[in-house]
Amino acid sequence: MTPPHPDNENRPVAALLAPDILALLEEAPGSVAEETEEMHPADLADVAGAMPRERVIGFLSALPAERAAEVLSYLPEELRIEVLEEMSAPEAAALVTEMTPDDRADVLEELEEDVADDILDEMPVEERQETEELAAYDPETAGGLMTTEFVSTPEHLTVESALADVRAAARSGRREAMHAVYVTDRAGTLRGVVSLRALLAAPDGARLADVTHLDVLTVPPSASQEDVARMFEKYDLVAVPVVDERRRILGIVTVDDVIDVIQEEATEDVQKLGGMEAIDESYMAVGFGTMIRKRAGWLCALFVGELFTATVMARFEGELSRALVLTLFIPLIVSSGGNSGSQATSLIIRAMALQEVRLRDWWRVAVRELPTGLTLGAILGVIGVARVLLWQSMGLYDYGAHYVPIAFTVGIAVLGVVTFGSLAGSMLPFVLRRVGFDPASASAPFVATLVDVTGLAIYFTVALLLLRGTML
Amino acid sequence: MTPPHPDNENRPVAALLAPDILALLEEAPGSVAEETEEMHPADLADVAGAMPRERVIGFLSALPAERAAEVLSYLPEELRIEVLEEMSAPEAAALVTEMTPDDRADVLEELEEDVADDILDEMPVEERQETEELAAYDPETAGGLMTTEFVSTPEHLTVESALADVRAAARSGRREAMHAVYVTDRAGTLRGVVSLRALLAAPDGARLADVTHLDVLTVPPSASQEDVARMFEKYDLVAVPVVDERRRILGIVTVDDVIDVIQEEATEDVQKLGGMEAIDESYMAVGFGTMIRKRAGWLCALFVGELFTATVMARFEGELSRALVLTLFIPLIVSSGGNSGSQATSLIIRAMALQEVRLRDWWRVAVRELPTGLTLGAILGVIGVARVLLWQSMGLYDYGAHYVPIAFTVGIAVLGVVTFGSLAGSMLPFVLRRVGFDPASASAPFVATLVDVTGLAIYFTVALLLLRGTML
Repeated sequence: MTPPHPDNENRPVAALLAPDILALLEEAPGSVAEETEEMHPADLADVAGAMPRERVIGFLSALPAERAAEVLSYLPEELRIEVLEEMSAPEAAALVTEMTPDDRADVLEELEEDVADDILDEMPVEERQETEELAAYDPETAGGLMTTEFVSTPEHLTVESALADVRAAARSGRREAMHAVYVTDRAGTLRGVVSLRALLAAPDGARLADVTHLDVLTVPPSASQEDVARMFEKYDLVAVPVVDERRRILGIVTVDDVIDVIQEEATEDVQKLGGMEAIDESYMAVGFGTMIRKRAGWLCALFVGELFTATVMARFEGELSRALVLTLFIPLIVSSGGNSGSQATSLIIRAMALQEVRLRDWWRVAVRELPTGLTLGAILGVIGVARVLLWQSMGLYDYGAHYVPIAFTVGIAVLGVVTFGSLAGSMLPFVLRRVGFDPASASAPFVATLVDVTGLAIYFTVALLLLRGTML
Repeated sequence: MTPPHPDNENRPVAALLAPDILALLEEAPGSVAEETEEMHPADLADVAGAMPRERVIGFLSALPAERAAEVLSYLPEELRIEVLEEMSAPEAAALVTEMTPDDRADVLEELEEDVADDILDEMPVEERQETEELAAYDPETAGGLMTTEFVSTPEHLTVESALADVRAAARSGRREAMHAVYVTDRAGTLRGVVSLRALLAAPDGARLADVTHLDVLTVPPSASQEDVARMFEKYDLVAVPVVDERRRILGIVTVDDVIDVIQEEATEDVQKLGGMEAIDESYMAVGFGTMIRKRAGWLCALFVGELFTATVMARFEGELSRALVLTLFIPLIVSSGGNSGSQATSLIIRAMALQEVRLRDWWRVAVRELPTGLTLGAILGVIGVARVLLWQSMGLYDYGAHYVPIAFTVGIAVLGVVTFGSLAGSMLPFVLRRVGFDPASASAPFVATLVDVTGLAIYFTVALLLLRGTML
């Protein structure tokens, strides 16, 4: 069966194979393994996802254990949990034992604690210990990301015998990542790294020490997954060793897990920017209660903040009653500030995430945003003035005798509010980071709320200055 | 010199080495290459970035050409352009020729056309042609991402002679990506792939055909960079071959470039979500004119859209003059809708980017967002009612005799506006995608503007229903 190509708008093609494979399971279960042999486990996971739930275990059982374990690691989290909970503990343990150590730890972490414990109890001692050790690390750190299957070799070898070691490891059937060989001394301390390429390129008779790169980039197990991801990005890495304080190698983090981290971090930032708490499941998988909890908190906080607009409005009620025409432009003016603030905060939050901008750069950012805000505010202000003058002259609306100062009140207020919005939107992420919060919490709605309250004050102040003695 | 570790809040440590290296350049330029030998080119690029601009060329010249070319590829774009424009064309050509073919094409694309042409003219014929061919592909496609340096081997070989070929390639000093070996027939058609691991694991005397994986994932050169990135994510790839319509291998895309694509796409989405056009440079590097252009367009469009709020307000001016107290809650009510819309649109845009949600899922999303919006709206509505009743009973503000219906007007309007905001925010990305636009253009400000106009209509309609006969 042919592997599918990714496409934009349709369900993965692999899913279309599900009926064929289900039929095969009925008629000739023994041939399923062979028929699907060349398929990528990710595609087989799509096939499993497209089957009726009660058939998935039967399908996995028809595959060789190692293959079934690979498919399991590619299943969507909800389905994987369902499958493992439905299996008996020995069945589940047999499958989980075949997974790579890092996947094993991740999978058990997804399960209810007692289910996970039952499965662990059924696993062979060595794999159980390995899994428990990995599961002890915070999943959002290098320790939580690493796998313990890597190839290492003692430093005193010749290249030829190191290569023979690597070949033996490759033939062993374990699934070590084999991007590089880590060179260690007798105490297990990391001394250097040799890429497979360098090992193959080494002249006959060379010693391992001659081709070992000594200054290996390493991370401690406690390094945050963001820092690990940034390291991969900066140095174009495929794998990085995780070492303890005595530089003994504990495991390696590989690039495929780092890509998942990068996507996860981007998702969190987008959701926070939208004014909610990050959800760590897919949109369709998250439960109703969780969805409300993640969204209601910020929404209530913003609502309470926004209540201050009513207070500001009440303070200017006298002016409003004398010049009701001013109320017409309230939504326009406050939203302009919110929009410019939203632009500025998105720019800065992303620039911070990519480390293009750091805390100390706040002043340089302010110096950029001030003229930007003034220019954008002037453009919008001119449109605002033009709108009032145009409507008046075309007879579409009568703003009364004082339409010219009203027009300029609107224009100048927009200029002020947009400038303030740009500055507030760009500075809020710095303030949040400075006091130890995630700058991505400076969401578009947060900035908009901040600017709404201030924007009203700006508007009414401009109105008082321009319309005093005429309308006010 | 020791390679630095990434850290969160400080400039890369490598930059601290710049003064030392500058001093060395003065005193013993011949030793710079050796002293920096173990440093990662990305760190040397940081060092170069921390030097006075006029010293960078001298620093690069002190390095071996291949090393200088690597450093050049890690420099920030602005600095790289500056360096290459300042060099003579033969100098620049010598450096660029040493880069990998994909970097060469990327770098020349950054330069002014005449500068790039001058450099191309000075390059050796073979490298020039290779570069020109790569530069012909759209940079945002697989063709634009791929490098032409990869290892391929004819299918009829034994494993031992294939391994000998690989060793020869590794020793040649070219910088092919060496994650896998691509197996081709005599016509150059891709027949399969062998990982280095499988090659090393193969039993003595095996034929290449025995260990070749036949169903290779491939992409056409025209595949979009997003699709390529999704393929890497799904299949945990390190490299993918790019093939023409006759399956002849043109090049390979490697994971380091894919990570850059993922970050670039996330940046674009965040900026669009903030209500602006995506900028393809770093925040600090983008010029003032570009910044205004990227931000002013959407800001003006939103402002013009927001002008309709003034029209809606004017329509209800009579009601407002009779019940001025209603104006107090206008910013509160419209912003609640904007906030809930911003949450919904962020969720859906990100879920679409990750392909968790597809166009056909719009109905399932609507069915989730309606009860979510109603629940969130009810929570905020209760707060709104409580605020009015509380202020009245505590004597903080006098809403007049009809304060109870006013409180319920506010509460019900908030319920309606938040529900509408959640629905509008979640559906707008689908509408945009359906008509062929980028769903990420359904920015928080766009949704807020949409909801502002509708929100006012909802508010005044509720007011008319509840207050008719009393205040209105």
